[in-house]
Order: sequence, then C-alpha cells, then structure tokens
Amino acid sequence: MSSARMLTGDRPTGRLHLGHYVGSIANRVRLHQRYESFFIIADLHMLTTRNSRPDIERVAHNAREMVTDILAAGVEPDRATFYLQSAIPEVGDLNTLFQNLITVPRLERVPSLKEMSRDAGKDEMPYGLLGYPVLQAADILCVKGQVVPVGRDNAAHVEVTREIARRFNHLYGEVFPVPDLIMSETPTLVGTDGAGKMSKSRGNAIGLADDAATVRRKVMGMYTDPNRVRADVPGTVEGNPVFEFHDIFNPDRAQVEDLRTRYRAGRVGDVEVKEALATALNRFLDPIRERRARFEAQPGLVDELIVAGTERTRAEVRRTLVEARRAMGLTGAYTQVRRRAERYRKAVATPA
Amino acid sequence: MSSARMLTGDRPTGRLHLGHYVGSIANRVRLHQRYESFFIIADLHMLTTRNSRPDIERVAHNAREMVTDILAAGVEPDRATFYLQSAIPEVGDLNTLFQNLITVPRLERVPSLKEMSRDAGKDEMPYGLLGYPVLQAADILCVKGQVVPVGRDNAAHVEVTREIARRFNHLYGEVFPVPDLIMSETPTLVGTDGAGKMSKSRGNAIGLADDAATVRRKVMGMYTDPNRVRADVPGTVEGNPVFEFHDIFNPDRAQVEDLRTRYRAGRVGDVEVKEALATALNRFLDPIRERRARFEAQPGLVDELIVAGTERTRAEVRRTLVEARRAMGLTGAYTQVRRRAERYRKAVATPA
Repeated sequence: MSSARMLTGDRPTGRLHLGHYVGSIANRVRLHQRYESFFIIADLHMLTTRNSRPDIERVAHNAREMVTDILAAGVEPDRATFYLQSAIPEVGDLNTLFQNLITVPRLERVPSLKEMSRDAGKDEMPYGLLGYPVLQAADILCVKGQVVPVGRDNAAHVEVTREIARRFNHLYGEVFPVPDLIMSETPTLVGTDGAGKMSKSRGNAIGLADDAATVRRKVMGMYTDPNRVRADVPGTVEGNPVFEFHDIFNPDRAQVEDLRTRYRAGRVGDVEVKEALATALNRFLDPIRERRARFEAQPGLVDELIVAGTERTRAEVRRTLVEARRAMGLTGAYTQVRRRAERYRKAVATPA
Repeated sequence: MSSARMLTGDRPTGRLHLGHYVGSIANRVRLHQRYESFFIIADLHMLTTRNSRPDIERVAHNAREMVTDILAAGVEPDRATFYLQSAIPEVGDLNTLFQNLITVPRLERVPSLKEMSRDAGKDEMPYGLLGYPVLQAADILCVKGQVVPVGRDNAAHVEVTREIARRFNHLYGEVFPVPDLIMSETPTLVGTDGAGKMSKSRGNAIGLADDAATVRRKVMGMYTDPNRVRADVPGTVEGNPVFEFHDIFNPDRAQVEDLRTRYRAGRVGDVEVKEALATALNRFLDPIRERRARFEAQPGLVDELIVAGTERTRAEVRRTLVEARRAMGLTGAYTQVRRRAERYRKAVATPA
C-alpha cells in the first residue's frame, strides 16, 4: 500500500444499489488497496442545498447503512477511515481561512455552480453555495488528501482545491499537498425498468443488500425488448437492460455470447435469459451479502468504526489547523501576549 | 449596568490619538457604563484585505498599546472583556454555518463592498472579502451581542448580522439575539496641519499618550488662519483647527468665547490662543496619562487582561457554537452513532 492518502466520500444516502457499485464503489474498492483511504460521510454538505434541519435519525441510519454496504462491497475496515463530516467543526475554521485565497469570479466559473445558480435563480444564490468548492477544499486538505478520485462532475471542484493549496503554500509556506486528481469513469447503470439511471427513488434499483429471492423477482420483472412478444421473435440486445446487466455482472462470457446470439435469432425465451442473469447477479452478490451479514451480526460495530474514524480524523484536522494557523501567523500574536501575561502573573506572585 | 451585551472593537492600530477619542472612544467610555462590553481586537480581519503574513510582533504590540489607551481613556477593566480575534478559531466555524443564510446578491449590495469591489477590480474580489459581513456577523453573534454601536460606515454590515440572526432563528429556533444598532455620530477631528482628518500616518496627530511638552509643541505648531500675519489682523475662526480643538476639549466656555471674539477682532495673538489650548488639552489628557502610567507600571498587566478576556470569550463562543450546531441538527447524527458504538463496546466487553 502506498503511503499517499486518498480522500473520497458521499452524502449519506442509505443503502447502496448496483448503480452505486458500478458508478463508484467498485473503483474505490480497487483504489483503497493502493492508498491510505479517508471516506467522508458528507452530511454537512446537505446544508448548502437545503436550509432546514436534517432528520437526525435518518442521517445516522443512512450513514450506518451506507458504510455497511461499502464494507460489504469489499473495503477493508483496517485500510479505511470513515468519518462523519458534521462531527468535525474544525473544518469550518479551515474553510474560513481559505476564503481569501480564491476570487468570486473564479468560483462563478465553476460549471456546476453556474448550473446551480441558474436553478436557484441568480438572485437566490446563497453565499455558501458559491463557496461550496472552498468547503470541499477544506474537506480534502484538512486531512492533507493527496489523491482524490473524481468523475467529470467534480473535477472542476477539485481544481479549486488545487489552486487554494498552491496559493496557500505560496503565501504562507508549504503546508498542504496539491492533491492529484484520479480521473475515473463513473459509468451509469440503467434501472430495471430500462427507463433511465438506476435510482432508489424511481423504484428501479437492485440493492446490494437485497436477498436472492428479491433479486430474482426484480430480474424476472425487468424491462426487455418490448417488440418481442414471443420467444421466437428475433430480439434486440442493444440498449436492452437485461443484456447490459449480463455484460457487467455475468463473468461467464461464453454463456452471455450464447444467449445474445440466440436472443437475436429468436431462439431463446426471456425467462431463460433472465434466469441466467438472476443466477449471475446472486453469485456476484453472495460474498457481499455474507460480509454484510457478518457486520449486521454485531450491532453497533459499524457505528464503532465510524466513531473511531471520526476521532482519528478530528485529531488529524486539529493538527492541520494548528499548522495552517501558525503558517499564516495567526497564532503568534496571542503567543506573545500570553508570554507577557505569564511573566506578569509570576511577578505578581513573587513580590520583590 | 444593564445586562444587555455590547460588542465593539477595532483593528489593532497601536496607540490612539485625539481623533480616535473623538470618533469612537469617548462614546464607548460612555456606553460601557450601560452595557456589558466585549471589545474585539480584530486582528483577523486584516487577512481579508492583505494576503500576506501579519507582522506578529507588531500585532501583539499594537494590540497591547491600543487596549492600554482604551483603558487610559476611562474604560474600566472590570466592566469590559478584551479579546484577540485570532485566538478564537471557533468563530470560523460559526462563519461557515452562517454562509447559507444570506445570498450573494444581498452581499453585493452592501455599499462598502461595492466600493471595495471597485477598488480591487471586480475580477479580483476575493470570496472572503464578499463574505466580510458574514464573518462580522459571526464576530457579533458568537458572544450573542445584543447591542452594536455603529457609524454610518458599518451600519449596513450590522444589518447583515441582523438578517442572519433572524434567518437562523426562523429556520432553527431562537438561538441568537437580533442585535440593536446604536447609531452614533462618528465625528472626525481635523489634524494639527488643518489639511485633513487626524491620522498617525499623516503626522498630524496628538496622541493620548503624548506628554505635556509634546502636546504643547504640537499645538504651538498648529495650522491657523494663514491670512493672519500679525496679531492685529482680524482672523477667521470657522474651519480654524485651533478653535475646533478649543470647542471640543476646552471646558472653559467663557475663555473660548472671549478668545474667539478677540481673534475675530484682531485683538489676540496666536500664541495666547494656542497657549490656552495647550493648557486645556493637557488638563484633558492628565487623567488619561495618569491611568496609562498606572498600567505601564505593571508590565504585562494589559496582556493579562487580554488573555483573561480571550479565555472567557473563547468559552462563551464554544458554548454558543454547540448551541447553534445543536439547533441546526448537526450534532444529533453523531450522538446517535456514538450511542450505538457505546452499546457495542459494552456488549463486546461483557460476553454472554
């Protein structure tokens, strides 16, 4: 394992599904073997988009479920530090220190912010939303993240982090790494209804924690080629979610090729194709379910991992903050005042 | 003394002069008798305008000198809490929490920011400079300031504080007072050269700590009516700094009226008018000098007051921050996770 430190994370969305696995989790499982990994559970970032109190029970529950699924997916707990963003208020200090290292027009040029600004209505753009990439810089740099996996969506944000790190180091001395971006494909997986991206809210998702029967039921109900009213009608495999899933999750390439050929020729029923997929998916999910079961057998173990990770991260962040403030010359004046106060106290305590 | 809490403060500019006294200190000496007073030594705000390391020695020295002059001017140390802004990093957290409670266009409409933006060049406006009124809101609300004396310059900033407090309370429940503005005249005092506002950098200032001989020398060199080449030439008192000073600092109204009448009639020499002013100023400054001497006789006493005030304030700010984070629902999720972790640890420690 390299000693380079990777920061990655998500909002606590609860249980994960195959779409998450394909989009990011698989990549993280791979990367966490190479890098010392910090997984931020980004519950604070919800504040920048919703100005209301979060549902505490839901956040805690979702955080726990999400981490359990990440662990079940193959991230090893002793190679990863999970932490809850809201439990580390010191990141807010660092955010404040970073705010003068970047200009308003620079932030206005970040593409996702342009979009959000358009959505919110230019007049309603909260100040903190414009500064969202600065808060992200604080999130990444508070643990001195050196490597950040990014998709197309957030590469521009991490570019802001790099600029802030460089500017800080230039003005105040080398404190922060300038993190490298690992550009990753973030492939999207189609939902079981074939109508769009897999998403819990659309009800077209297969969860990593779904049991075998549920997976089978969902697969049997999957959308396929609608023109294929009988098994002897030649079917289309392109854009057919059942075959997309086969391509991704069925390691038996020969079987997939055979099914594809027969499907195109009208020589296989949907049921057979789907049965094969359900079997393949359940084989893929079995080790994930087993790991999940092991964590679930110890209620509170995942919470304990989050607490240990959060405590560890908080200590790191405090060290980083002291270092940053010292480099900026923010601690010096008070040190001087305190020293003189100390001498005064001693002088008063020991009269001549 | 009312229990209402007042927040006021300045950047640490070092020793104060008569211009500061007239502009703000006199008002604070008066107000601190009525309100529980917090004096912020705003050394952090320098970061928003200068992107370089502060000169630590200078900041500490200037903070000490400024506080000494404020105390010498009549603020009683047991009625006021002085604290160094840079020593309270938690204000940065609060700043981060407040950032979504106000929009970018609202901040862009703050008059002084419009000016600064023009000065900096619109393209160079640092993000933190646009958010300067948000950081000020954090400074005021971190100690739950209820009363803020303002001049025309900063009333618009404190309006932002009021909006943020109201918005916070509306969204998350009553945590912050909506501070009242005490509109104060901030009269400016002309410099001894009659050429503009009294200012240390222009060399036209009379310091609160100047000794009697220095004051006399500076007064004797003051600018007066330039057309008055001899004592028997009638002079103009309007806009004449010597008479402006008499009006403000000489409590002997009869003497001032007599000098004014004779000056207009060409029946008094400049020397007599200035001698009278030097005497009046020294009488005004004597008790200030005496108090200053008492503080200076105990080196480190002022530092000790700053340290005690900073520690006290920091404890207050931490309490406020916990309260604000709790109201926002930011502490709850971690509490839940921690509770389950705790139960897990107990279960592991006591096997069935």
